[in-house]
Amino acid sequence: MTYEFGRNPQLNRNGELHHLLSIEGLPRAIIERILATADGFINVAEREVKNVPLLRGRSVFNLFFENSTRTRTTFEIAARRLSADVFNLDIMRSSTAKGESLLDTINNLTAMQADMFVVRHATGGAPHLIASHVAPHVHVINAGDGRHAHPTQGLLDMYTIRHYKRDFANLRVAIVGDILHSRVARSDIHALTTLGVPEVRAVGPLTLLPDGLEQLGVRVFTRLDDGIRDADVIIMLRLQNERMRGALLPSAQEYFRNYGLTPERLQLARPDAIVMHPGPMNRGVEIDSRVADGTQSVILPQVTFGVAVRMAVLSIAASSQRMQ
Amino acid sequence: MTYEFGRNPQLNRNGELHHLLSIEGLPRAIIERILATADGFINVAEREVKNVPLLRGRSVFNLFFENSTRTRTTFEIAARRLSADVFNLDIMRSSTAKGESLLDTINNLTAMQADMFVVRHATGGAPHLIASHVAPHVHVINAGDGRHAHPTQGLLDMYTIRHYKRDFANLRVAIVGDILHSRVARSDIHALTTLGVPEVRAVGPLTLLPDGLEQLGVRVFTRLDDGIRDADVIIMLRLQNERMRGALLPSAQEYFRNYGLTPERLQLARPDAIVMHPGPMNRGVEIDSRVADGTQSVILPQVTFGVAVRMAVLSIAASSQRMQ
Amino acid sequence: MTYEFGRNPQLNRNGELHHLLSIEGLPRAIIERILATADGFINVAEREVKNVPLLRGRSVFNLFFENSTRTRTTFEIAARRLSADVFNLDIMRSSTAKGESLLDTINNLTAMQADMFVVRHATGGAPHLIASHVAPHVHVINAGDGRHAHPTQGLLDMYTIRHYKRDFANLRVAIVGDILHSRVARSDIHALTTLGVPEVRAVGPLTLLPDGLEQLGVRVFTRLDDGIRDADVIIMLRLQNERMRGALLPSAQEYFRNYGLTPERLQLARPDAIVMHPGPMNRGVEIDSRVADGTQSVILPQVTFGVAVRMAVLSIAASSQRMQ
Repeated sequence: MTYEFGRNPQLNRNGELHHLLSIEGLPRAIIERILATADGFINVAEREVKNVPLLRGRSVFNLFFENSTRTRTTFEIAARRLSADVFNLDIMRSSTAKGESLLDTINNLTAMQADMFVVRHATGGAPHLIASHVAPHVHVINAGDGRHAHPTQGLLDMYTIRHYKRDFANLRVAIVGDILHSRVARSDIHALTTLGVPEVRAVGPLTLLPDGLEQLGVRVFTRLDDGIRDADVIIMLRLQNERMRGALLPSAQEYFRNYGLTPERLQLARPDAIVMHPGPMNRGVEIDSRVADGTQSVILPQVTFGVAVRMAVLSIAASSQRMQ
Repeated sequence: MTYEFGRNPQLNRNGELHHLLSIEGLPRAIIERILATADGFINVAEREVKNVPLLRGRSVFNLFFENSTRTRTTFEIAARRLSADVFNLDIMRSSTAKGESLLDTINNLTAMQADMFVVRHATGGAPHLIASHVAPHVHVINAGDGRHAHPTQGLLDMYTIRHYKRDFANLRVAIVGDILHSRVARSDIHALTTLGVPEVRAVGPLTLLPDGLEQLGVRVFTRLDDGIRDADVIIMLRLQNERMRGALLPSAQEYFRNYGLTPERLQLARPDAIVMHPGPMNRGVEIDSRVADGTQSVILPQVTFGVAVRMAVLSIAASSQRMQ
Repeated sequence: MTYEFGRNPQLNRNGELHHLLSIEGLPRAIIERILATADGFINVAEREVKNVPLLRGRSVFNLFFENSTRTRTTFEIAARRLSADVFNLDIMRSSTAKGESLLDTINNLTAMQADMFVVRHATGGAPHLIASHVAPHVHVINAGDGRHAHPTQGLLDMYTIRHYKRDFANLRVAIVGDILHSRVARSDIHALTTLGVPEVRAVGPLTLLPDGLEQLGVRVFTRLDDGIRDADVIIMLRLQNERMRGALLPSAQEYFRNYGLTPERLQLARPDAIVMHPGPMNRGVEIDSRVADGTQSVILPQVTFGVAVRMAVLSIAASSQRMQ
């Protein structure tokens, strides 16, 4: 898939967020506005009545061309807490299965007066393609596309770091695992560098490290002990099951021996370091249960923050002027 | 399946629409009332807040015994914009799979205080059977049954024609393709003749034309060029994939050569002719992309009108007196 | 699976219902309060607007690890009539399929600010395990776990009996069929004995009768004629298809000959006896259609009462103080 855009296909002429496609190219001010807006929604979620009427009467369509119950559910929760009408399309069984093209599907849903599409797709660039195609009043939110980007995960990770560390200016952040295949890593790296984190590290076996990390301002480590030493934040990535056998990795056991985060290894990081994971975890593969459930783990708060951050993204995008 | 009814099982004693099962036998005044009511809902859909409270607190059950994400979604949108509580039953995995009969399933849902069933079923007559069986206050809407009828598609097609042509009195309407297996064609033919269209044409290969069209007042053509000459409206039908091989048709390529609507052929119709299609389209099989995306295509407006027409059907049926 | 609890894991320190896990150990006063509360909801369901705002803004998650469209739908109806936000997780396709543990899934959903879990699971004790694990403000409702319990079915059965018989003090209640594998039978037996029914009978072939029934105060019968003689209430159980062949039973035909409830046999019961069934029925296996559809059948009213009883359970649990 190829696509071509002018600068910032995510922003309207006034520089406001219209689509959320990628953290790459997103101005720091917009990221900070999303995080600030999410603060307000954290409080909403703690009330007994969790709904606010910001998107009342708007139609949000969840288009998950790849299965992800967890991400789909958090987007659905976010949209419904904003009082939107949410429609979950069983896209696997739908017209695309009858040979209809992606753009015909999008055109049809737009004709049903969709206001917003939340898109997950196995092909990188699919949300961009959709965004370049929809009517000017329609918003597209990328919920993960191929190996390309997972911007709301990146934003919730920044929210989590800001929550525990207050400031991005003096941090060492280590991202550990299968960087090569990870859209989460890519979105985190763009977010961290945009927010001015001075030291971003990528840690993993050579076979799972992509080229070009240094050009993004990332320090590369192939030994876990080196990579997490004195880190303030450790982001563990999920090791996809399909990587555990075959050419790229010898076995899950050996991976754990070399890259699994244990309590002993965690002591190499700063004493107040936090441990993050986008979930779902492979306990005993990339992370030891004693770390996952330990006092430095902020993995469950990430989930809570994720709902608030997605509410922020949906409500900010929905309030933008028409794209021109 | 056999069933026996008195006249007009769709109407209550006052002649009001209680169920929508088929356009056959539906009085012209009721069709016109549905179209006029849909006019009002078109405006609702263009508002930012798209909901009206007409069905607040009513329970609408989508019973799709055949997969159709698109039709199910438009009914769900229509019902939710009317503020109904909509329940999508995963009927494929449900009790019917455990050997429960259709009528036991319906009885159970009725006992849960269903107000309305939207039914799609592979067997023609299934919605009639259900309608003959439910409690007097319950409404049944046929969302497509076997080869029999697809009345809301017929109504939205009439809405589309009226929108672009204003008047049914002087039109030539050509329906092109697999008439034999098409519930859309059947519903369109009944609607067009009821509304007084003077010339309704059926165009397709002999193997895909049913007997008895002439008795319905339809002119039959086996050559596309003859069938669309001077037409005001061309309704292209979807060619089901399973027809493209085997006894009825030689191949998709040959079908396109003989019956595919190309820009060149479209010039045989009137210059202001509109092109319709119920979707999903097989581009390059029954329709050329240049026609599908061309200036005479009204295929996407059909989708928009479909939501408004379904809102009209649901709200009119729901307001009828109890069946007696 | 093993688990260990103090007394009454379902109740908070004030003795109020916090989770509903099993009827075993549930005080009579709580059962009676549920039945009385359900009375009020019966009237709500008969109104045109069926919704009340008791759970507005609360998030109820349906976690059905076992398929059951019917039970899931009645819980969804109940929660939505209480104005809750209901989320149906497609748990079969979810993270648990990616190897995530049950408790990690629960932790994640709790982190999304779930207020209530409705759980069906093939393993007995799964809802207890979840209840022992969730945050203090979260409520767990057992919607059927393995062979262990189906407490809302037991409660709706009690509601039905009370509705038709007014008083539990002088009844003979016969439960007929596959007692061994039936969580319904287990929940009914605990409810009936707690409510003071003097004579509870279990009727079935020896191979389908568990040990220990007498200790529960149940009279055991292996002949249907003996078991239903002079009964006031007959609860027929569904015979699972997988039991009909193989070691436990010779065939469905022979089962019907010995244990199928026919009109002739029903005459052995009291003339005003009612016949119940949890559904879905196997007509011609455990019950003759003439009985299922006959004047003594209260099978469909059970379904209606089931929605009201579930509304009562959800609203009573949601109003309890935090578990401590």
